[in-house]
Amino acid sequence: MTPKLSADDLNLLLQSEFPYSGDSLARVEAVGEMTARVRLPYHDRHLRPGETISGASLMTLADMAMYVAVLAMIGPVLLAVTTNLNINFLRKPTKNDVIAECRILKLGARLAVGEVTMYSESDPSPVAHATVTYSIPPRT
Amino acid sequence: MTPKLSADDLNLLLQSEFPYSGDSLARVEAVGEMTARVRLPYHDRHLRPGETISGASLMTLADMAMYVAVLAMIGPVLLAVTTNLNINFLRKPTKNDVIAECRILKLGARLAVGEVTMYSESDPSPVAHATVTYSIPPRT
Amino acid sequence: MTPKLSADDLNLLLQSEFPYSGDSLARVEAVGEMTARVRLPYHDRHLRPGETISGASLMTLADMAMYVAVLAMIGPVLLAVTTNLNINFLRKPTKNDVIAECRILKLGARLAVGEVTMYSESDPSPVAHATVTYSIPPRT
Amino acid sequence: MTPKLSADDLNLLLQSEFPYSGDSLARVEAVGEMTARVRLPYHDRHLRPGETISGASLMTLADMAMYVAVLAMIGPVLLAVTTNLNINFLRKPTKNDVIAECRILKLGARLAVGEVTMYSESDPSPVAHATVTYSIPPRT
Repeated sequence: MTPKLSADDLNLLLQSEFPYSGDSLARVEAVGEMTARVRLPYHDRHLRPGETISGASLMTLADMAMYVAVLAMIGPVLLAVTTNLNINFLRKPTKNDVIAECRILKLGARLAVGEVTMYSESDPSPVAHATVTYSIPPRT
Repeated sequence: MTPKLSADDLNLLLQSEFPYSGDSLARVEAVGEMTARVRLPYHDRHLRPGETISGASLMTLADMAMYVAVLAMIGPVLLAVTTNLNINFLRKPTKNDVIAECRILKLGARLAVGEVTMYSESDPSPVAHATVTYSIPPRT
Repeated sequence: MTPKLSADDLNLLLQSEFPYSGDSLARVEAVGEMTARVRLPYHDRHLRPGETISGASLMTLADMAMYVAVLAMIGPVLLAVTTNLNINFLRKPTKNDVIAECRILKLGARLAVGEVTMYSESDPSPVAHATVTYSIPPRT
Repeated sequence: MTPKLSADDLNLLLQSEFPYSGDSLARVEAVGEMTARVRLPYHDRHLRPGETISGASLMTLADMAMYVAVLAMIGPVLLAVTTNLNINFLRKPTKNDVIAECRILKLGARLAVGEVTMYSESDPSPVAHATVTYSIPPRT
C-alpha cells in the first residue's frame, strides 16, 4: 500500500488549508508507507519562558505530522479530525528546527492511531513523544 | 489556601512572557482555590478545515489554563513546564470564544495534575477535555 | 434520558460476563443520567510493593466504571470496547475500598468519552483520575 | 549503560513482590539497554466478553513491562511508581500469549518515560500501544 499523496502534494494542501500559518507552517519532508516526516522551522515566536520551543508548538507539530501521515495514505479527506492526543515532553528542545517522525500503528475504517517522536535538529535524543488518534469520516 | 496571584497579575505576566501571541493570547477571567477560568477570543486564524476551531488552539488553551491555575497557587514560577498533556476532542466548537475551566487535582512539591474542560461560549456541552501535568522546579 | 439498566441489572451482567473475577469484581453502587459509581472492595491481592493498591487495580476499576456508565445508558451492548484510557495516579491509596465516580462527557453514535475520579473510602482527595473512550459497535 | 538486573533477577523479584499473581504473572523474557520484553501467558481468566484478552490484562502488562525496563536500568528501586499511563487499543488480541516490547524514551533522575507495543504471539500487527511514566524516588 503506497501513499496516495506525495510530500509536495501535502505541502500544497497544507498551505491552502491553513492560510493563517504563514512561515510558522510545518513542512512535509517525506512520506512513506504508514510514515511521515515533518519539520517545524525554527522561529522566535515558538519560544516560551526559558528560551525553549513551546509545548504548544510541539503539540501542533505532532497533530500535523499524524494528519499528514493519514492523508498520505487515504487521500485528501480534509475532514479527518483528531479525537485524542497524548504527549509526553521529554527534554528541553534546543533553539533549532524540530523534526517529527510519525508512524501509523493502525489505519482502520473509522479510526487511525499513530505515534510521533520529535527531535531537535541534529540531536538524536527525542524532545517529545505523542500518540494521536484521528476519526475518519465515512467515505462515499 | 488562597491564590497568590490575581487574574490581573496573571494577564500581565502572560503578556510579558508570550510577547509573540498578540491578540491570539488567551485571557484569564478568574482564579480561585485550585481553579482558573481562561478565555480564548475568537479569531479566524484559529480555524481549521471544516470551519471549526483547530485542535492546536484548544491544546494551547488547555495548557495555558493549567499554567495559569498552577502559577496562581504557587506564584510566578515561570519555569514550571508541562510534562504530559492528554486531550479528548468531543464536539466541533462553534465560531465563538472558547472558555476553559481548569481544576487542579493534585498540587504536589514536584508535580501538579489538573483537568481542563472547554466550552464554546454559551453552549453547555463541552467541546474538549484535557488532563495536564506540570513539573514544578525545586524552589530555593 | 434515564438509564436503561439499574445498578442491580449491571451487577448481574458483570458477574455473568467476568466469571473469573470472583471476589475481586467491582460492585456497581449507583447509576444516573450519564454517571455511575462503582466500588472495588479491598483485598490483599490488590496490593503492590509499598503496601498500596496497585495501579493495575485502579486502571481496571476505571475501565469498569466507564463500561458500566455506558451500558447503563445504551443497554447491554456487551461488545462496546475501550479504545483509549489515560490515567494519572495522584496519591497513594490507603488500604481500603476504592470508589470510582464516572461521568460521561460525550455519548456519540460511535464513541463515548468519560472521566473517572477515584477515591479511597472516606478520604475526599482523589487517588487517581482517568479518561476513557469506548467504541460502540453499530446497532442493528 | 548496561542493565543492572538480568531477566532472571527480575523474574525472581516479580515473584516475591507480587505473590498473589500466581500463574497470571507476566514473565520477563529479555532486558537490554533501555529495553525489555515481557510475556503474558495465555489464560482463560484474561478473557472478556467477545472472547478476547481484556483491556485490564493489557494495561497491567504495559505497566509491568515499563516497571521491568526501569528496574533493569536503575536496580531494585521497588518504590518506583506509575504516575501516568496512556493506552490505545488497536486490534482484538487472539487467544494467545501477549508479548510486550518496552523502550525507555527518557530516564531522568525523577521521571522515566517509555513506550510499550504489545503483540499477540506470532502476529506482527500490534494489538495495543501504551506510554507509561514512572516517578523514581530520591536515592540515598
